[in-house]
Amino acid sequence: MAKQAVLTPQAEDFPAWYQDVVARAELAEGGPARGTMVIRPWGYAIWELMQADMDRRIKATGAQNAYFPLFIPMSFLEKEAKHVEGFAPELAVVTHGGGEKLAEPLVVRPTSETVINHLFAKWIQSHRDLPVLINQWANVVRWELRPRVFLRTTEFLWQEGHTAHATIQEAQAETLQMLEVYRAFMEDVLAIAVVAGEKSAAERFAGAERTYTCEGLMRDGKALQMGTSHNLGHNFAKAFDITFSDADGQLQHVATTSWGSTTRMIGAVIMSHGDDYGLRLPPAIAPHQVVVLPLAEGDVEAAADKLAAELRGAGVRVHVDTRFHLSFGRRSIDWELKGVPVRVELGARELAAGQATVVRRDSRTKSPVALDAVAATAAGLQDEIQRALHAASLAFREANTHTVADIDTFKRRIAEGGFLRVAWDGSPETEAAMGEGTGATIRCIVEDDPPGPTDLISGRPARHTVLVAKAY
Amino acid sequence: MAKQAVLTPQAEDFPAWYQDVVARAELAEGGPARGTMVIRPWGYAIWELMQADMDRRIKATGAQNAYFPLFIPMSFLEKEAKHVEGFAPELAVVTHGGGEKLAEPLVVRPTSETVINHLFAKWIQSHRDLPVLINQWANVVRWELRPRVFLRTTEFLWQEGHTAHATIQEAQAETLQMLEVYRAFMEDVLAIAVVAGEKSAAERFAGAERTYTCEGLMRDGKALQMGTSHNLGHNFAKAFDITFSDADGQLQHVATTSWGSTTRMIGAVIMSHGDDYGLRLPPAIAPHQVVVLPLAEGDVEAAADKLAAELRGAGVRVHVDTRFHLSFGRRSIDWELKGVPVRVELGARELAAGQATVVRRDSRTKSPVALDAVAATAAGLQDEIQRALHAASLAFREANTHTVADIDTFKRRIAEGGFLRVAWDGSPETEAAMGEGTGATIRCIVEDDPPGPTDLISGRPARHTVLVAKAY
Repeated sequence: MAKQAVLTPQAEDFPAWYQDVVARAELAEGGPARGTMVIRPWGYAIWELMQADMDRRIKATGAQNAYFPLFIPMSFLEKEAKHVEGFAPELAVVTHGGGEKLAEPLVVRPTSETVINHLFAKWIQSHRDLPVLINQWANVVRWELRPRVFLRTTEFLWQEGHTAHATIQEAQAETLQMLEVYRAFMEDVLAIAVVAGEKSAAERFAGAERTYTCEGLMRDGKALQMGTSHNLGHNFAKAFDITFSDADGQLQHVATTSWGSTTRMIGAVIMSHGDDYGLRLPPAIAPHQVVVLPLAEGDVEAAADKLAAELRGAGVRVHVDTRFHLSFGRRSIDWELKGVPVRVELGARELAAGQATVVRRDSRTKSPVALDAVAATAAGLQDEIQRALHAASLAFREANTHTVADIDTFKRRIAEGGFLRVAWDGSPETEAAMGEGTGATIRCIVEDDPPGPTDLISGRPARHTVLVAKAY
Repeated sequence: MAKQAVLTPQAEDFPAWYQDVVARAELAEGGPARGTMVIRPWGYAIWELMQADMDRRIKATGAQNAYFPLFIPMSFLEKEAKHVEGFAPELAVVTHGGGEKLAEPLVVRPTSETVINHLFAKWIQSHRDLPVLINQWANVVRWELRPRVFLRTTEFLWQEGHTAHATIQEAQAETLQMLEVYRAFMEDVLAIAVVAGEKSAAERFAGAERTYTCEGLMRDGKALQMGTSHNLGHNFAKAFDITFSDADGQLQHVATTSWGSTTRMIGAVIMSHGDDYGLRLPPAIAPHQVVVLPLAEGDVEAAADKLAAELRGAGVRVHVDTRFHLSFGRRSIDWELKGVPVRVELGARELAAGQATVVRRDSRTKSPVALDAVAATAAGLQDEIQRALHAASLAFREANTHTVADIDTFKRRIAEGGFLRVAWDGSPETEAAMGEGTGATIRCIVEDDPPGPTDLISGRPARHTVLVAKAY
């Protein structure tokens, strides 16, 4: 009997492959209410590891965690004109509470600038109160017509940072600092080579003066926005009347920022590292970094437990799979699907020979290793796999980033996927023209020094180098 | 000039004292939407420490974290008759999403039995899939007409566990195991002496067969329900058709449980340990276990930093307060209000004498300590204070628990506050009668061996000893 393919191959149908991995690796599934998602234990354990690492990095910048209400009066959103314009089409609205119709409808937070800046106005009086650096881990809701698990869901989990500063310059420094926190996290922890840069005006956050983004390139050649950081200037401070008395006793508006990263990053990990055999997890976020698979009960299982104890002693997150009612092959494939970085497989014959088989998930290479060297080998592979996945992500991005200087090449390349480096004149017209018939968007401005003297489309003098791609 | 009292004294007006502490210790405040709360950084840091410890204990029982949607179709709640009857009056309802009126209104989860049991029905097929042990950290919404920060808020944070088992006996063992996890956490971490026991039928969770509770006694003599654990029997399994094939291939309903603990526990800490000078935090949940207060910049500050480094090296969470623009007294009172277990105060004269002042928050005692002994002293005090707060909580509860056998004493004692141990015949009629004119409720059944032969009110044969109190 021919072995049945577990997953749709990536090359055949990438979106089908993605859905297959999400389901078969038991990461998540749709909830009963349209567009919502259930994050299953394996997916949530990955998120917890991401959270813990990101939380440390955020706290290291001096920010403190806090919690603000899920429900925001509709009138709050209306205080910042661009903000409500941007979010109105995506809102979920509570009209009834405790059996009564509410006098004022409540919005389920799509983001918390309005409620947090309302509190900032109460908390901030003097320059001595600044900066205020707040972070929140929370769920948010943005109504989604074409939901896709982790990538676009009506409800998602995230952290949102909100800060207030004495000057716009300080707010700008904070905005860039947090962009760098995101970039470093994505490279070091998620092992994804990202491009950090500023968004064009058309792609700015609703209410921001400047928006910065980290963009990843998925294995189907489409870009994914993985985290954003916004300098909100005085926009929210004026809308919510957040002032402080400066050192000279003069009343000034604060400058604010916000920055966020979400469960969408799990989707980025799947689509950056996954292959036709399933997920490949960077060891930094693998709930089990090593799974030990004894073929049978008795001596073999005892030897597996001993290896696991050694690995645990070496600081490795290890699990022993003793589901003996399942075939060994099925158990092995399960952990391959789930992306566990290293498997240690052990049978009676191997035990007698004093060795085990160490399997790397990234390269799928199998090596016999002497039992007394297994723990050190499997532990040592963690760093190696983390680096190898990052190197592969970087190589993929570089192989799929092309500088283009004429429209025909632009259109051909866009259809093939990848990042295009393009000279742009900075106008919304040429930005819109790039998308016509291609579906491409400017992902971010990467340099102010353009790769050619003139805009690809308008022929006018170029101002920036931008990365253009089709995106999720 | 007379020193102005910072807080309303407890003896004068306990609710006003509570509001004062919550505000002055910067724990939380009301949000703009009625009944919601903002948990400020100091309050949230306490919650994070509670969460981390509780999460470890829950995971040690084998439960895995996951995440389920905020929005639940109204029809799901209606599947379990008692459940919807209990929760209908408290629901917040989303009627509009993405600018459209929804075909079916969505409920903002008041608790997640319905959506999680819906998923259990998909996940569970065989006895090999059991038990399923799931925990979720999330926000929930229950419309609240008389909100009170931490104690009763429209939105609160909690963990909710949901498990499925092959038999009702196993579900009962899980229910009791989690009750014990809560009890141990409240005693060991929150330093609160609680009473664990079963609720009467009238006080059961909507849809449960048996409900167990941990009850604390606050310093005003009122009881606070601090965590509950429910054996749901087959009620939800039947409503959501959760079946498994047993070892003989027969289809059976699973038995389920649920158990939850919330941000209300922060309120319990405030009302169990707080005094007229503010909060007193058990060291296990103190964001700063020691605050070092240098009187001035320069040498004194450098010496303070050195002490802090030593304390950090001893594994203590330490903070150095260098807000020199504030008076020393104001800074000291701030940390007293916030409940930091130990303060180390250091001036130039003390530095010259080679010593600092170590101040215990629990007893408010000040001792001069040689500089080279400060770190060891302040670190050692952490365990001592943790134990002292628990001992005080236990002594308070014992001093305020009385066995009563006649109605006159019952009424007089209830008016004075505290727990009353009462013989109960087990009937809803006498349960209701106890509350008439007194506002008291049965908090829990503590023993099946009654303290007297007959029910206090009915004179019928007694079946249980119950604790009765006025409660939050």
